[in-house]
Amino acid sequence: MALGLSMSARRKFRTVIERKLFDTGGDQLAALLRERRTLLITTPTVYRLYGGKVQAFLGDHKLNASIEVVRLSEERKSLEAIEEICALSIDHRLGRNDILLAVGGGVCSDLVGLGASMIRRGIRHVRVPTTLVGQIDAGVGIKCGVNFRNRKNYLGAFHPPTAAHIDPSLLATLDLINVRHGLSEIIKIALVRDSKLFELIESYGHRLLHSRFQSPAYVADRVIRRSIELMLEELSQNPFETNTKRLVDMGHTFSPTLEEESGFSLPHGEAVAIDLAYSCLLAEDLGILSSEHSQKVIRLLQRLGLPVSSPLVTVELCKTAISNAIAHRAGQLNLVLPARIGKGMFLESASSLNEDRLKRVLDRVLAAAASSSSKSAERLGERRAPINLQIAKES
Amino acid sequence: MALGLSMSARRKFRTVIERKLFDTGGDQLAALLRERRTLLITTPTVYRLYGGKVQAFLGDHKLNASIEVVRLSEERKSLEAIEEICALSIDHRLGRNDILLAVGGGVCSDLVGLGASMIRRGIRHVRVPTTLVGQIDAGVGIKCGVNFRNRKNYLGAFHPPTAAHIDPSLLATLDLINVRHGLSEIIKIALVRDSKLFELIESYGHRLLHSRFQSPAYVADRVIRRSIELMLEELSQNPFETNTKRLVDMGHTFSPTLEEESGFSLPHGEAVAIDLAYSCLLAEDLGILSSEHSQKVIRLLQRLGLPVSSPLVTVELCKTAISNAIAHRAGQLNLVLPARIGKGMFLESASSLNEDRLKRVLDRVLAAAASSSSKSAERLGERRAPINLQIAKES
Repeated sequence: MALGLSMSARRKFRTVIERKLFDTGGDQLAALLRERRTLLITTPTVYRLYGGKVQAFLGDHKLNASIEVVRLSEERKSLEAIEEICALSIDHRLGRNDILLAVGGGVCSDLVGLGASMIRRGIRHVRVPTTLVGQIDAGVGIKCGVNFRNRKNYLGAFHPPTAAHIDPSLLATLDLINVRHGLSEIIKIALVRDSKLFELIESYGHRLLHSRFQSPAYVADRVIRRSIELMLEELSQNPFETNTKRLVDMGHTFSPTLEEESGFSLPHGEAVAIDLAYSCLLAEDLGILSSEHSQKVIRLLQRLGLPVSSPLVTVELCKTAISNAIAHRAGQLNLVLPARIGKGMFLESASSLNEDRLKRVLDRVLAAAASSSSKSAERLGERRAPINLQIAKES
Repeated sequence: MALGLSMSARRKFRTVIERKLFDTGGDQLAALLRERRTLLITTPTVYRLYGGKVQAFLGDHKLNASIEVVRLSEERKSLEAIEEICALSIDHRLGRNDILLAVGGGVCSDLVGLGASMIRRGIRHVRVPTTLVGQIDAGVGIKCGVNFRNRKNYLGAFHPPTAAHIDPSLLATLDLINVRHGLSEIIKIALVRDSKLFELIESYGHRLLHSRFQSPAYVADRVIRRSIELMLEELSQNPFETNTKRLVDMGHTFSPTLEEESGFSLPHGEAVAIDLAYSCLLAEDLGILSSEHSQKVIRLLQRLGLPVSSPLVTVELCKTAISNAIAHRAGQLNLVLPARIGKGMFLESASSLNEDRLKRVLDRVLAAAASSSSKSAERLGERRAPINLQIAKES
């Protein structure tokens, strides 16, 4: 005889975008933390830059909160770091209704999220992402994870934050390199969903990069908000990835294996840029994408100082990546390719990806990279005129 | 500005009860595993007893399965064991649609379940519990967890199995002590939900214990099925424990701290029995439960050879347990107490549990334990006549 049980869970979270979160803003965040115990986890760099403001914010709002500064990095994105976070939650006596607050980059969100999912089988967490990647991608998703035995994000959970608070003014102190990594993810989502967003990055990407998204502020906020909207739209249709056809996997088929191959020393944003370039040229080779569009993507990546190739990318690596992706996507490749800028499609099977093709595309990537480096002097001074787009200032 | 996202997940699982799963039965299990890769995780003892049958079963059904024998025990119920299981899933190249199959006791279910919840952010797992606790409690729930920094099940997940296959004939090889531990959980659920089940254990408990639930088989199957039904009914109303008033927490307020205090050397089922006895005498002291009923519970536990006290139980430990439970239950004690045999209620706050009361109840527990040990010679030969209950044989 058999007994059945079915259950359902509703989860929701809120993404709030406001500048000056720890200065004049932050009332909504404070309201969320009030009457709970909060353990704020942050990293040494973020603490050095914002520790004073964060402490003043917690004090002004009389919140019952403690701060712990933990070394968290892609190399330390492991179960060991999870253990450290979970041990801190014991030290600070977090109860079931209390909150872990992640103030840091994508790795910090990922680690705090996974820790929160495991502590007492799931406590709340809130994210304040301090990097561009965190603000438009990792920090507003529901996935969290750690690398395991050299496998990128092999262990993890779907654990939505209670809220994500996005403050673009926190980006002012970022290294340029980190802004580039965020732009890589913005280009990714634009490529499969929104040609207008792509054009906006073509026009303003260079200024946004060098101003660290502070100027023009209304364009920066618009780009961030639109990127988040697109992420959340994709997420809402398929939050637990029961469907393995995910447009947001654009740029994320070759990149995980590339990151593994680099021992996680290649930053995620750069691996994604390399994957985007390879995928576009592959799409062109398959007759899916026009040469004009694939060149636009590659030029934009290069203009923003993102790499389009790496000595680690070989035909062998591409084949391994394809087989890893098939295992991860339940037996189908579901490689995301742009059909044009702003529209993605799926290559379900790897049958057309023979060794000749993978090699041919790789050669084209290397040619593009070489031609770019010969023009690098010229490129450094380049700034395209803004295109004529109507952008209303929005709150 | 704020963007909201709400998502919902439906999960279901099936519990199948059939004897001789790996002999003549098992078609449903085989159908579930067909066309997927299966990694079967089991323990040395189970493998020694059933390895041959399991291999024959996998071979006869031509399943694509491998077996790994892993040392899993309460002392090893840790993240280290999770790492071992996750590493095996890499070694055996489990993809997203593949299955981890746990064939073992409650610890095996818990560890394989938590591992499955983390691998690729959640793959399927199926449970074949081989202990009585596993069959009527741990193996048919959706909770899994590991001990962490001496905290019982501090880390874990809610991760329903795809199915649980319950074969009471697997219990034939159990140590008596393990059967006792299962009876402890059966008495727990009977105490808060079903006086008839309690009477059945009063009448047949001794025979079921000594036959390892093989005789009378129809009573054994009835007890197992009814216990599972009650578990699933409780679970279906509150699968993710958003409500911290859980009748199945009967016997689980003092026991976790007691297990921690013992360094996890005190078996869970014994800790639960000790908690049940303490809770019943506490309920009596509070005027909630009649002395007649509390005595019945204590006599039944003792008659089945379960402990009702431990030198580790002190007033201090009870106070720690109460404060741990309040942290775990989001600020409310919600101690489950029987109002009568078959009906549980909740003590929401600890305000009435002053030191005097905790001490007085502890003294009564010790008195009951002492009086029992003085009658132990007599008790060993005791067997109550079966009461007149209509039990239809059911498939």
